Amino acid sequence: MTTASMGLIGVGTMGSALALNIAENGHDIALYNLDPSTIDDLISGAGDLAPRLTKTESVEALVAAMPTPRAIVLLVPAGGPVEASIDALLPHLTPGDTIIDGGNSDFRDTMRRTERVEAAGFQYLGVGVSGGEEGARHGPSMMVGGSKASWEPLRPVLEAIAAKFEGDPCVAHLGPDGAGHFVKTVHNGIEYADMQMIAEVYGLLRDGEGRKPSEIAPLFHCWNEGTLQSYLIEITGKVLDGVDPETGKPMIDLIVDQAGQKGTGRWTVIEAIRMGQSASVIEAAVGARVLSSERVVRQAASKVLAAPDTTTAIFDEGDLESALMVGRILAYAQGFRILKAASEEFSWDLDYARIAEIWRAGCIIRSALLDDISQAFRSDLPHGRLILADEFASLLETHIGALRRVVAQAVTIGLPVPALSSAVSWYDEVRQARGTADMIQGQRDFFGAHGFRRLDKEGDFHGPW
Amino acid sequence: MTTASMGLIGVGTMGSALALNIAENGHDIALYNLDPSTIDDLISGAGDLAPRLTKTESVEALVAAMPTPRAIVLLVPAGGPVEASIDALLPHLTPGDTIIDGGNSDFRDTMRRTERVEAAGFQYLGVGVSGGEEGARHGPSMMVGGSKASWEPLRPVLEAIAAKFEGDPCVAHLGPDGAGHFVKTVHNGIEYADMQMIAEVYGLLRDGEGRKPSEIAPLFHCWNEGTLQSYLIEITGKVLDGVDPETGKPMIDLIVDQAGQKGTGRWTVIEAIRMGQSASVIEAAVGARVLSSERVVRQAASKVLAAPDTTTAIFDEGDLESALMVGRILAYAQGFRILKAASEEFSWDLDYARIAEIWRAGCIIRSALLDDISQAFRSDLPHGRLILADEFASLLETHIGALRRVVAQAVTIGLPVPALSSAVSWYDEVRQARGTADMIQGQRDFFGAHGFRRLDKEGDFHGPW
Repeated sequence: MTTASMGLIGVGTMGSALALNIAENGHDIALYNLDPSTIDDLISGAGDLAPRLTKTESVEALVAAMPTPRAIVLLVPAGGPVEASIDALLPHLTPGDTIIDGGNSDFRDTMRRTERVEAAGFQYLGVGVSGGEEGARHGPSMMVGGSKASWEPLRPVLEAIAAKFEGDPCVAHLGPDGAGHFVKTVHNGIEYADMQMIAEVYGLLRDGEGRKPSEIAPLFHCWNEGTLQSYLIEITGKVLDGVDPETGKPMIDLIVDQAGQKGTGRWTVIEAIRMGQSASVIEAAVGARVLSSERVVRQAASKVLAAPDTTTAIFDEGDLESALMVGRILAYAQGFRILKAASEEFSWDLDYARIAEIWRAGCIIRSALLDDISQAFRSDLPHGRLILADEFASLLETHIGALRRVVAQAVTIGLPVPALSSAVSWYDEVRQARGTADMIQGQRDFFGAHGFRRLDKEGDFHGPW
Repeated sequence: MTTASMGLIGVGTMGSALALNIAENGHDIALYNLDPSTIDDLISGAGDLAPRLTKTESVEALVAAMPTPRAIVLLVPAGGPVEASIDALLPHLTPGDTIIDGGNSDFRDTMRRTERVEAAGFQYLGVGVSGGEEGARHGPSMMVGGSKASWEPLRPVLEAIAAKFEGDPCVAHLGPDGAGHFVKTVHNGIEYADMQMIAEVYGLLRDGEGRKPSEIAPLFHCWNEGTLQSYLIEITGKVLDGVDPETGKPMIDLIVDQAGQKGTGRWTVIEAIRMGQSASVIEAAVGARVLSSERVVRQAASKVLAAPDTTTAIFDEGDLESALMVGRILAYAQGFRILKAASEEFSWDLDYARIAEIWRAGCIIRSALLDDISQAFRSDLPHGRLILADEFASLLETHIGALRRVVAQAVTIGLPVPALSSAVSWYDEVRQARGTADMIQGQRDFFGAHGFRRLDKEGDFHGPW
């Protein structure tokens, strides 16, 4: 099999890191960027790897600089820039060439583009790449969607540059066209939820106990040695340790409390709701970012709507650790439920165990938990539900009380815990044999004659009202 | 001005009721239904009004039976049936005729259909109709979208058949094309939230205190005399009073706990998220219906995941009343925030006070609160936010403690309160001057070099990590 030659359009933070990773793995790579100076910077700082990096001045020149068959990676912003890159590439490609979209594209765009590029006689892969700059440089986790014919020739290079978990490359072909980008979208949704729950616990310690960042950081360092071990817990400790060199103050205390978001968190929630699923923990995280952006309103509201007294709060550290762990399990459970719904709708036949495996290293949500999750999916899961696997049911039973205590205490003293409280609500809804939707059905029949089913016989009935 | 002659396609539960309402207000009405027997039933039961009702055998015959200009109401299921009705009508209409879609259509479809019907030379109104069968018969609340030229000739008949609040007809022209259906969608989102919060409180009394329906009903009857006074509280008491004539058991205890849903709740959440808004209380209600449908999984989970002991729970009745009231205010606040976002995006210039006014009677969410809400919007609301209006801020301050106690207690004993807990979380997020998104921005900068803004100077910065 001929190895494809590598090209890259979009040499920003992620692109530069990925180019060096590819070069380090023994491949020459041709580069094109709208602003050519970033390529100069990359090459001048690349040391031994510089000879493998070739700057080109246009998309046409990029293609011309590459032997066939070509594999051209796009690392440009989702939407118009991806479309424009494809437009620019198509006239110059030859059969056997593959376009690889490595950005956070909407999976529906990827479905459409796959069809378009294949109809033009070429190959297309939509690859979700997670791991940030560090991951791109030293090994990301990659979720691949596309035809097997597009995937197989590129498998060796993608496996080479991927993160490894005990030697196993964190890259897999998950399904056709949009499957890889959809899985990446849900990955990001889970990431939103995990980050939000961490921020909530940080808030309880900061505002409830009045701790300084330096008094919170050690907790996260400690938690990173236990069941919470994960990249996000690790970097939270490091963020809390960060000191502004100019002022000598803790960096975090100087950061404006307004979080940005790109599309993936929102898309996860929208697709979940569209497919008739609940993504409440992820929605709480998306909603928290939305409300963070309304800083002026929050400041006005804080003067009008007083909080209960928080000055005497003391949270049990073990409870906070357990609450984060349980919240994380429940966020994963929601995420995998959404993947299952999409897999059924689009006939992707997603391999949930393999997805958990390729998330074990390289990506932002990598955590000790994922190895257990992949094993749970390899076993025969009752109703396909993570929370019913023996190990997870047992973890939840042991630690759910801590989540209850943390949420109850936070709600009482007026500190917001939207994601943690959504997690506990979802848990209690899922494990309620007799729910309260009988009331909703009664109301709907009362005002709209919708009818309802009865427990004691078959058929459609109306109430005596 | 010539009064339009009236026609109706779709003579189901709602259609029959609306036809009688129109007839009672002095208009002849021509009827067409796919299944003609429903029209026979309607006419044979219409008594004095029967002479005003004309059965027709086809859409073409319906149009032929009506003097010009015609106003033809569609009360058929959203989606394909609306489209098919328009297809069938267009070849037979004459200039000056108006098609009125009175169903729960997606507002984007209404935008598209308005353009299509107007391009064909006719007029189109998208009208959200709320009130169920009873409302349709004796006066619904109607939210009208379309051109002023389409609205004005029909205003007299729509005002005549509408519900009245102290003489004021509950119908208004809210904006062009999709505006009416969008407002109706959000109305339904709020309805979902209110129904869910009521169901949660019912669940606390049923499962926490072990009360029978007959021991819960009096509470709702009593609450309906106070600040909670509303149609949904009223019918909840009546549903709880309902006895199955066959078995003599409380009807509610025989209803399967699986709630159905049409599109509007989901659409509200999807549009809110798309526009960068949080609709967490409504999302919790949509999610609860989703989870209600997974009854088999819930029953399996209930055996594996035990609940804490609930047998000794006692809820303070005053707290439950206050919690429902505060939850309702917060659900309205989310709903009006979503309306504001849409009004800005689509340049609808929605009149929030008028919307609250036409919801005061006829519709499912009518409540004593809405008169106060309309007055708040008529005053100069700080930042346009309901919760910052003096009266509402004062209500929230007084009663939020009750919501905190109810949520904390429910979470502690393992009874699900997804909507009530989302409400309290949202409240605490909105009134937090210094949020916790500083942590999220720190994490994002750490792993993705996203950068952040600082409190102490302008610009875009990175951390020392």
